[in-house]
Amino acid sequence: MSGFGVAVVGATGAVGAAMRAALEERDFPLDELHLLASARSRGRRLPFRGRELEVRALEDFDFRRARVALFSAGAAVSRAHAPRAAAAGCLVIDNTSCFRYDDDVPLVVPECNAARIADAPRGIIANPNCSTIQLAVALKPLYDAAGIERINLATYQAVSGAGGAAIEELRRQSGELLAGRDPACAAFPKRIAFNALPMIDVLQDNGYTREEMKIVWETRKILEDDALRVNATAVRVPVFHGHSEAVHLETREPLAAGRARELLAAAPGVRVVDDPAAGAYPTAALDGEGSDAVFVGRIRNDPDCPRGLNLWVVSDNLRKGAATNSVQIAEEWRRRGAA
Amino acid sequence: MSGFGVAVVGATGAVGAAMRAALEERDFPLDELHLLASARSRGRRLPFRGRELEVRALEDFDFRRARVALFSAGAAVSRAHAPRAAAAGCLVIDNTSCFRYDDDVPLVVPECNAARIADAPRGIIANPNCSTIQLAVALKPLYDAAGIERINLATYQAVSGAGGAAIEELRRQSGELLAGRDPACAAFPKRIAFNALPMIDVLQDNGYTREEMKIVWETRKILEDDALRVNATAVRVPVFHGHSEAVHLETREPLAAGRARELLAAAPGVRVVDDPAAGAYPTAALDGEGSDAVFVGRIRNDPDCPRGLNLWVVSDNLRKGAATNSVQIAEEWRRRGAA
Repeated sequence: MSGFGVAVVGATGAVGAAMRAALEERDFPLDELHLLASARSRGRRLPFRGRELEVRALEDFDFRRARVALFSAGAAVSRAHAPRAAAAGCLVIDNTSCFRYDDDVPLVVPECNAARIADAPRGIIANPNCSTIQLAVALKPLYDAAGIERINLATYQAVSGAGGAAIEELRRQSGELLAGRDPACAAFPKRIAFNALPMIDVLQDNGYTREEMKIVWETRKILEDDALRVNATAVRVPVFHGHSEAVHLETREPLAAGRARELLAAAPGVRVVDDPAAGAYPTAALDGEGSDAVFVGRIRNDPDCPRGLNLWVVSDNLRKGAATNSVQIAEEWRRRGAA
Repeated sequence: MSGFGVAVVGATGAVGAAMRAALEERDFPLDELHLLASARSRGRRLPFRGRELEVRALEDFDFRRARVALFSAGAAVSRAHAPRAAAAGCLVIDNTSCFRYDDDVPLVVPECNAARIADAPRGIIANPNCSTIQLAVALKPLYDAAGIERINLATYQAVSGAGGAAIEELRRQSGELLAGRDPACAAFPKRIAFNALPMIDVLQDNGYTREEMKIVWETRKILEDDALRVNATAVRVPVFHGHSEAVHLETREPLAAGRARELLAAAPGVRVVDDPAAGAYPTAALDGEGSDAVFVGRIRNDPDCPRGLNLWVVSDNLRKGAATNSVQIAEEWRRRGAA
């Protein structure tokens, strides 16, 4: 055992790359980084802190060599390997939907419910869905100040949330269409270039997609309010990185837009960009990409609804929406002396 | 006077081209088509019914030569020339926002309020905003069956709604980004390629954009219900043609999704595409482009709201959202023997 080891499971994927970047940029104190992936990626070399690290096969890895394991290789991989990592004494921070809805697994956004990190009897902490994380960060200060009864949102989600092949498909289809050719579809069931697809993940019995229901289930769990009414429409748009959300809230107490703006400006993890008359509003490409903040703009009361408030919420889905939030959980866990 | 003349004002623009296409495809009975534009376009030749027609200067045109004038050259042009066209005995169908909110100008979507065509004392009928037309067509059968108290929507609007320069800008910026270059902005204030811009038209004092308020004002006027509560967020997305809308309704009476589906399937101008488990849902690129229908899918009740219903509404913004609706008004006016 050589000090504090961190394992990244799914190191070769789009989120894995963002995990390495987040650990490096945030200068996370670790002695050894273990990059793990499926056997076919064994031997690949990936950069970290100026060195090249070799990717190892997850199957063979002894998790006693790590104190924290960041999982982001799909729910099936987490189901198979997270329990043995936890049994080896490793804190698992899981970025898949595998454990998110289990009562004995906390679902954590540090800006919202960092205290829940202490309640991980199985040694597993779940990282929420990307769309939920940025929503929860923006909602939390408003929820604490005025209460929230109801949320209605429509998302504008980047292709990077669907992985590297989806990024490549948007690039390829866009080029083909600009050249006058008719592009084939592989990563997405319909054309994503110059289009908007109102269907992410599989359909549930209630007519919502699983992506939409994740927002419902996870927002309730993070805000610890099962009575919260949430309605979502999740849409994939031809954006590479950065999810945007058009959010309508009904607060319990009246909340003026100006006060909401103040609360958000003072909230951790939030950056308010809200002077639309002067051209200041967040967009995925210009603010969301490459930043760890959750950007909020277009803050305005709904004149037709006494406690109605609108927000436009943007964040980088691979960073705050996935990797950064996982690394923040690890940081918080260490700060609390759990390590 | 040689029979039934039709004038297209703004003939060289993106909507003007769609007007010519709609008149031709729908075989609108006309004896002469007058293509009008600003003096600098004088002499350009544009195709219609297998011939080339010369563009004339609007300033010099004698509207006694036409029975119907389709205006789509901006509000300032309509303000200056629509009254003289009407004074010459020509029915003006105006596709700008110039007269839409005047009490003595009907605002018509034929599927919703065709009877209002008879109430045009000034000889002017207004064509609604593109986002409103497709919304109104989808709402009308539900409104008639169950009443609607409240609408909350977020739009995904194509660049063609902002004109030919905007189409060219999306094309240019997309190519530059794919080639690794940083694109300049001209038609839009921020980059539109691979991005989403939550700001269309100018900001109003209440924090909403004018595009958002058009949806509010015009939906109320078309459905003839000033008490209707409407909240909109209007967003430009990198799509060439076809607007999409994520719509949440609260009906007055409960309305099951299955019944809403039946009502919509039987409604004029609507095409239901709604079997998402089998991959059937409308998208701008695959259904909306080049069709005159309003496509509706993702029809589902909101389990957190007893009278809540979601729809995903797509239509070609230059066709049903502009040109086709104007030509339909002219057709209806003739059918009613007003001509």
